[in-house]
Amino acid sequence: MGKKNLSLKDIAEKAQVSTALVSYVLNGREKETRVGQEIAEKIRQIAKELNYQPNYLAKSLRSGKTFTIGLIIADISNPFFANIARIVEDEAKKSGYTVIIGSSDENAGKSRDLIDVFINRQVDGFIIVSSEDTEDQVQNLLDKNIPFVLLDRHFPALPTDFVSLNNYKAAYEAGNHLIEGGYTNVGFIGYKSRLFHMKERIRGYQEALHKHRITAPPAWLLEVEFNTLEEIRTGIDKMLDARHRVNALIFATYRLAISGLKYINELGLRVPDDLAIVSFGQAEAFDLYYCPITYIHQPMDDLGKTAVEILVRKLQKPELIRTQVLMEARIVARDSSRSRITDVRS
Amino acid sequence: MGKKNLSLKDIAEKAQVSTALVSYVLNGREKETRVGQEIAEKIRQIAKELNYQPNYLAKSLRSGKTFTIGLIIADISNPFFANIARIVEDEAKKSGYTVIIGSSDENAGKSRDLIDVFINRQVDGFIIVSSEDTEDQVQNLLDKNIPFVLLDRHFPALPTDFVSLNNYKAAYEAGNHLIEGGYTNVGFIGYKSRLFHMKERIRGYQEALHKHRITAPPAWLLEVEFNTLEEIRTGIDKMLDARHRVNALIFATYRLAISGLKYINELGLRVPDDLAIVSFGQAEAFDLYYCPITYIHQPMDDLGKTAVEILVRKLQKPELIRTQVLMEARIVARDSSRSRITDVRS
Repeated sequence: MGKKNLSLKDIAEKAQVSTALVSYVLNGREKETRVGQEIAEKIRQIAKELNYQPNYLAKSLRSGKTFTIGLIIADISNPFFANIARIVEDEAKKSGYTVIIGSSDENAGKSRDLIDVFINRQVDGFIIVSSEDTEDQVQNLLDKNIPFVLLDRHFPALPTDFVSLNNYKAAYEAGNHLIEGGYTNVGFIGYKSRLFHMKERIRGYQEALHKHRITAPPAWLLEVEFNTLEEIRTGIDKMLDARHRVNALIFATYRLAISGLKYINELGLRVPDDLAIVSFGQAEAFDLYYCPITYIHQPMDDLGKTAVEILVRKLQKPELIRTQVLMEARIVARDSSRSRITDVRS
Repeated sequence: MGKKNLSLKDIAEKAQVSTALVSYVLNGREKETRVGQEIAEKIRQIAKELNYQPNYLAKSLRSGKTFTIGLIIADISNPFFANIARIVEDEAKKSGYTVIIGSSDENAGKSRDLIDVFINRQVDGFIIVSSEDTEDQVQNLLDKNIPFVLLDRHFPALPTDFVSLNNYKAAYEAGNHLIEGGYTNVGFIGYKSRLFHMKERIRGYQEALHKHRITAPPAWLLEVEFNTLEEIRTGIDKMLDARHRVNALIFATYRLAISGLKYINELGLRVPDDLAIVSFGQAEAFDLYYCPITYIHQPMDDLGKTAVEILVRKLQKPELIRTQVLMEARIVARDSSRSRITDVRS
């Protein structure tokens, strides 16, 4: 592509030294030679002036490394993943790695294509936010001994490195927080998904009800296929029509919450008096809403940084044992889940 | 990296045919041979069972193409760029291209690294949302005859293909909309930047004031270095303290608007009665705000799709002349800039 790159020979000619010496200097191995600091500096200067591009492919064949990490995220248009990508990049840069990113858009076929493309582009390893039905791709990476770390979502049956959230506990605490605040009829809106993190969120919510001996009618749990306003409208209508009408809602993702809040506004319901709200994920819209929304804070910084740390360590010492991290979320309680019980007492 | 790939020979052995035949079939060139449909199908089946990975590098050396586009965005954690990335991907996929993404994080050095990495990873061409001070990198791509299209931001002095917004006109219309709605004291909050699109937004705003013979004191125009709440607080304080206090504000990006609105809420100012608002960019927070925010709708879909179209055409016919597109934004008027003049009449 484009013009041919400048060769080491061109630099050697201009610096009036041997090609071998140029190669040693530009590969940072000048200490293996008797070359003086001054000559080394001169060679680097000329390389810079001539805009020399090292041949990464040749370099990587020698070192077996490209210092590139392939990051595959589940959906780039989801700010949660976009923000995590930024954190992964910043962190990888500190260890000298460049990150190239692909978005699988929650699609297993696209995820497979990206993994193939990145392998052929010789990334040193992967950080992956998995999409549904990609267990076989992950298994394939394990079989091929390709270094990778799963981020935010993992498959409990597969022996991989991963950094995820303790989703069960986070959802349990969200439910508990609402119930102890006097909202006993808690609904939950999530996705219909085979992914473990979503199943765990639902399980945590159900466990919170169970602990408080609350029996939830089926309408309280809504699992949507896609985040369409229509599906959410119908589901919320059912929750409000139910014999045991909900007085609080947990949203499993910030996107579901945005759609839900739009409909709640349309219905003219007041938060939290008519309906208390807790949502997973942090969003600007939660801060600017007339009644600031209580959210489950996911430690994005720690998630992203830890994934990079684990991968970089693996790349340096491939014999390392597996690292599996479940991080804790915390509830940031705000007006949208204001306790009713305090109101009664005061 | 990992185990050695399966060779064509392994497949040939298992299928009991020649290696050449396997190569023809797997490269979709079986019509050039006398091989029957059945044998071709058998070869493909075996390749699939053995999980054969075509050697893209060899393939790309033959065709001179990798069917990969490098997309460099200015900041992945900015939803505007993340959404555009998703659109570019979807559109590129339709033409058979895989997109790999890098984020320069508004940093010229990082942008340069990414361009190098992508060139060495043999992308066919680039789509770039440029960061400040990267004219030399763009010039370098031109010099090297590397196909690329600039997206959303361009350098007017450089003869490149690009798809951008008519930022001057968009800002002019925002100013005009406010002034004709009875808000004569319009402030503007943007970034201090050498980037053309930002300069154009400021120019458009100033032209709107000029047309209506409004003389703006210096405090009305705030150019911040970074989007820190502190800088924005101080700037808004000055606009409100000015002898000619502002009664309307234009924000040059949705992020500035989010910060600004947080402070406006803190001050207890009501939108639009105390302060009318128009912002560039679309954001969920604008919809959920108690007073829906008027925004300048940027045609993200068209921007992204057109950039891909132009690049794909270039890759197919490199001799094509330059394509430069300035798209029009439109104002979506909502409550935050409700006309005062109508109020007086009614």
